[in-house]
Amino acid sequence: MISNQNNKENILKDLDKKSIEIGMGGFLEPDIKEDLYKNKMKKRKEVQGKRVQKRSLEKGLVIVFTGHGKGKTTAALGMAIRTLGHNERVAIVQFIKGGWEPGEAKALRIFGDLLKWHALGEGFTWETQDRSRDKELVSKAWETALIYLKNKEYKLVILDEINIAIKLGYISLNRVLDGLKERPLLTHVVLTGRNAHQELISNADLVTEMSLLHHPFKEQGIKAQKGIEF
Amino acid sequence: MISNQNNKENILKDLDKKSIEIGMGGFLEPDIKEDLYKNKMKKRKEVQGKRVQKRSLEKGLVIVFTGHGKGKTTAALGMAIRTLGHNERVAIVQFIKGGWEPGEAKALRIFGDLLKWHALGEGFTWETQDRSRDKELVSKAWETALIYLKNKEYKLVILDEINIAIKLGYISLNRVLDGLKERPLLTHVVLTGRNAHQELISNADLVTEMSLLHHPFKEQGIKAQKGIEF
Repeated sequence: MISNQNNKENILKDLDKKSIEIGMGGFLEPDIKEDLYKNKMKKRKEVQGKRVQKRSLEKGLVIVFTGHGKGKTTAALGMAIRTLGHNERVAIVQFIKGGWEPGEAKALRIFGDLLKWHALGEGFTWETQDRSRDKELVSKAWETALIYLKNKEYKLVILDEINIAIKLGYISLNRVLDGLKERPLLTHVVLTGRNAHQELISNADLVTEMSLLHHPFKEQGIKAQKGIEF
Repeated sequence: MISNQNNKENILKDLDKKSIEIGMGGFLEPDIKEDLYKNKMKKRKEVQGKRVQKRSLEKGLVIVFTGHGKGKTTAALGMAIRTLGHNERVAIVQFIKGGWEPGEAKALRIFGDLLKWHALGEGFTWETQDRSRDKELVSKAWETALIYLKNKEYKLVILDEINIAIKLGYISLNRVLDGLKERPLLTHVVLTGRNAHQELISNADLVTEMSLLHHPFKEQGIKAQKGIEF
């Protein structure tokens, strides 16, 4: 069983390597003759076909969007849209208010009952100024999240800013990891927020770190704008 | 003028520094007394208020989502939703077909005329196997994009996978940079795709690099799944 799995992994790695060797095409090699180009791309198509064929498992994924760059919550929203487009149910539980604001809330209302949205935090630490109450609210938010995680009608559960709630000591990592295990086989979960815990990262199926490469934006004194931040 | 701008930047940097010094709160300092905690958070709130007040400019942003991680197109989709939620118009021009598929297309149709969507590529290089035709189609896609970029009724224009079109030599960077300059003052543009050109990055207001931190996902032989890839 294990050697079968290793064998499959090796085949997949080989195919990935081949596709990189053949390259992306276009005008990256401007002087290549057109018939040679065509042959190369035919070969790449073959490899691509095998890559798709060999990847046949279906599995509910644990996805983490972390890092200091912009796009974490936004990417989770994009996944919600994708899932809703397939007429599957989505639940969003927001652990720290402020990350999600009117724009997307209004837009998503159009999907009616397919989408459940819970904004359970009361604001950033400097708004509430009361960490015991914050902790209680996060605990309640988690209870709500668990209901969706266990319900197989929900194809996607988004735990927005939960990484920060873990970081601030409002909920234990183990409580979250145990909860993730309770979900049905095909339920996807997205956990967002900077400073994702290393052990969560090791337990995830897909982790994207979003880093700020360039942000004159910040130095220019530009305010939070509609459609960008909210 | 320049020294005024520098002065403002310094004030902003100072405020950012102060907020970092005060910290995020929660249980990061578990032993701090509650009244001291409350005072700290009060101070942070003051700083936060000033940070918001000092950032007062409105400006159409050039935003780039690049890197090899997942979430680039997905984050662009999230921004579309946000903008639509404010009843503003959005145009999406897709330069390489395959990045966008049925899920989001179906979901976004619900917004009717507020959203325009053009899928103008014919597929990846290994599907078309014809780079001259690819180049022509990218050129046409760009003409379409320009119409939206110049029309101030469109608050957000998404140029999906255009970074790859530039990388493959299907459109010149300068043509794109010139086009971005033609847009009204308050129009936001998002450019997605890996390998964003360094000069585009330097010209952008906000650049997020999405990197793959962890992806057992790939080795496990899991197939492209509804809601995740499409």
